[in-house]
Amino acid sequence: MSQSKIMPMSGFPEWLPGQRAVEQHFLDVIRSTFELHGFAGIETRAVEPVDRLLGKGGDADKEIYGLSRLAAGEDDGTGPDLGLHFDLTVPFARYVLENSGKLTFPFRRYQIQKVWRGERPQDGRFREFIQADIDIVDSGELPFHYEVELPLVIADAFARLPIGPFRIQVNNRRIPEGLYLGLGLSPEQVVPVLRIVDKIDKVGPQTVATMLTEAGLSPEQAATCLALAEINAPDSSFADRVRALGVEHPVLEEGLLALSAVMDAAAEHAPGLLVADLKVARGLDYYTGTVYETQLVGQESYGSICSGGRYDALADDGRNTYPGVGISIGVSRLMAKLMPGLEATRATPTAVLVAVTSEDERRESMRVAAALRARGVACEVAPVAAKFGKQIKFADRRGIPFVWFPDTAGHSVKDIRSGEQVPADASTWTPPADDLRVGIREV
Amino acid sequence: MSQSKIMPMSGFPEWLPGQRAVEQHFLDVIRSTFELHGFAGIETRAVEPVDRLLGKGGDADKEIYGLSRLAAGEDDGTGPDLGLHFDLTVPFARYVLENSGKLTFPFRRYQIQKVWRGERPQDGRFREFIQADIDIVDSGELPFHYEVELPLVIADAFARLPIGPFRIQVNNRRIPEGLYLGLGLSPEQVVPVLRIVDKIDKVGPQTVATMLTEAGLSPEQAATCLALAEINAPDSSFADRVRALGVEHPVLEEGLLALSAVMDAAAEHAPGLLVADLKVARGLDYYTGTVYETQLVGQESYGSICSGGRYDALADDGRNTYPGVGISIGVSRLMAKLMPGLEATRATPTAVLVAVTSEDERRESMRVAAALRARGVACEVAPVAAKFGKQIKFADRRGIPFVWFPDTAGHSVKDIRSGEQVPADASTWTPPADDLRVGIREV
Repeated sequence: MSQSKIMPMSGFPEWLPGQRAVEQHFLDVIRSTFELHGFAGIETRAVEPVDRLLGKGGDADKEIYGLSRLAAGEDDGTGPDLGLHFDLTVPFARYVLENSGKLTFPFRRYQIQKVWRGERPQDGRFREFIQADIDIVDSGELPFHYEVELPLVIADAFARLPIGPFRIQVNNRRIPEGLYLGLGLSPEQVVPVLRIVDKIDKVGPQTVATMLTEAGLSPEQAATCLALAEINAPDSSFADRVRALGVEHPVLEEGLLALSAVMDAAAEHAPGLLVADLKVARGLDYYTGTVYETQLVGQESYGSICSGGRYDALADDGRNTYPGVGISIGVSRLMAKLMPGLEATRATPTAVLVAVTSEDERRESMRVAAALRARGVACEVAPVAAKFGKQIKFADRRGIPFVWFPDTAGHSVKDIRSGEQVPADASTWTPPADDLRVGIREV
Repeated sequence: MSQSKIMPMSGFPEWLPGQRAVEQHFLDVIRSTFELHGFAGIETRAVEPVDRLLGKGGDADKEIYGLSRLAAGEDDGTGPDLGLHFDLTVPFARYVLENSGKLTFPFRRYQIQKVWRGERPQDGRFREFIQADIDIVDSGELPFHYEVELPLVIADAFARLPIGPFRIQVNNRRIPEGLYLGLGLSPEQVVPVLRIVDKIDKVGPQTVATMLTEAGLSPEQAATCLALAEINAPDSSFADRVRALGVEHPVLEEGLLALSAVMDAAAEHAPGLLVADLKVARGLDYYTGTVYETQLVGQESYGSICSGGRYDALADDGRNTYPGVGISIGVSRLMAKLMPGLEATRATPTAVLVAVTSEDERRESMRVAAALRARGVACEVAPVAAKFGKQIKFADRRGIPFVWFPDTAGHSVKDIRSGEQVPADASTWTPPADDLRVGIREV
């Protein structure tokens, strides 16, 4: 059968082994940070019924990959049509409902999986990509302090990774909502106005002002909406600037107190990493409290690499409501931007190549390898009992730092970078900590 | 929009958090063992062009899930039709061809990912499941010793896991092939005879003998084919029993030496774990050397939980041939069988719940948590400043072993299992090693 030409597929990124080691490092650090913060890992199936996928996530229906069994007839008894999940929030909400009787609330979970969207691939946007989500979901009521806590978890994870300076921007839905209501707008106007203000970076404040007046706002109201969007601060000083706009409303005051609490906690636990930015609007129309976006400093046009917020009803089964707050790291998006500047210290886990003196003595080399592995030293035995120079070259090409020589007169190990060779015993010798595991470094 | 009823989906297993912790432990041990043996991790995209999927893997075409963009028109420019991969071998072969210029051979890779098959779910057979594969692939020629090495890697991984007694059965394609040829069968008869002999466990030796004579074998030839299939041994003694059948052929002798080498290495490095079983036929029609299957002792009817073998041409790009040897652990299959007998020591990574004295003092509890995390102790802060008894109960319900009390008069930590409470300093206190991470235990 003639087959497709072998070539990369746009939107479906794959890494070479050394690059995958970099990505794996990121995934390991993210996972271990999530676990340090008491989040339990789950995975959900990759597929959901299409009607469930269509019911959530706004216009995501345009992006869903549907599934069909190639060999199946029209009615193959598989039940509802299936599609690949396009995020981890919809499946998590379904998992919470399905297992609510078996979970303890508040439930802290992380989930690191691939998701799929059929949209056109662009810079940093893929058709298959990895998301790393944390959510805290409660039954009935969710304490506000979790909205303070979540960006600190992300800041902790990012602080352990070589991602350069980043900025977590936070806003609170109640601030624009309260301000708009205080300006005399009706509750029905809130979301349309939020959507118009959200265009400020694209079309500029003048056009937004025009659009707002076209939507029925007075020039003064429009000016105040814009003034709010222009406020940002690295601390809770934003609140006084908002109050200086002279608008009063209890919802606004609630929002200011809530965002101030986030900023005050951040000042202590993640100084300099959070910015209150009242222009952040994405998701404000479906989140109900704090919202988060994250930019790489100097790469703002790349868009957010980590976003989330609070939902009053992550899930609802008719008897109980499950409010939640969550953040999702766009791991593939982040890697696509950072990979050119990073590399693994080597493209293989192997720290020691055990040389083979002759094929008859391969068994002895396997013994050495087993002894090293028993103490956690990753190693492999040379493929061929070639001349030692060739075996050293084999290690060198792979970045393997040490070669072990099981000479009958006495074993020795050579650091092929320095050339230093020392007698060694496989039951005690260990490489330096920096060489034991694959690390990553900036290039 | 009305949505599908929330319910588990047959063939798409999901785990509760505590069960996922068990599965994660297995995945971590498998991965770290693969890395100890010098295998580099890669991931491939979940999708391949359908024509590539159809071109490999025997009758797997019946099982492929095809993909379509729900919102796409007839000609949406996505190129060839895509399907979800049904194993990790086909994508790995494609990856090797695509990246051959950037890989160093022999290339040792592991790959732990989900795969999908649209077949009818049964006991231990799923539509979405995790496979953990290792392969060693070379360019041109692949040394035989890798066929010896691969089952030892699996034995090493399984020895680190609570899977109970298991048995890796090995055979070598050359043994039945050489025997059949030595009996005077033609090369064209080899695969059909292999397929008939493979039915021995299902239909019994009598029926197989009849089928063999119907296929043109003499009663004596059929009897010798059956006699071969009945030979098994925990060591290389199988070879003499095969030779006692009185058939001679150079291919048979090659096979006996090759399988003896596997058994001799296993006797030293994984004593008691490998069995030479000349009945193992699955895959002999497409593998070309050693083949492996793995049974849980006492659960033989469940089928193989880990299988593989040697290919002379894992991949071929017209200029180079890439021979390989690989084994795949059916992780989901294994978990489905073992999960009822295993549990996590707790369903959350949290080792310490930091109690909250009052909501005003939550910040102090967050400080304690940050200090503990800085030293690798997973913790979370209590959700509400309830009475301490209630906060202890919160920890107890989750299996969290320690509760921390940040009393202004002096901090203390309580082991809620023993009730022992001691003064503690968050900058120095560490839980016992057994409590630091989630473990698993048999139930």
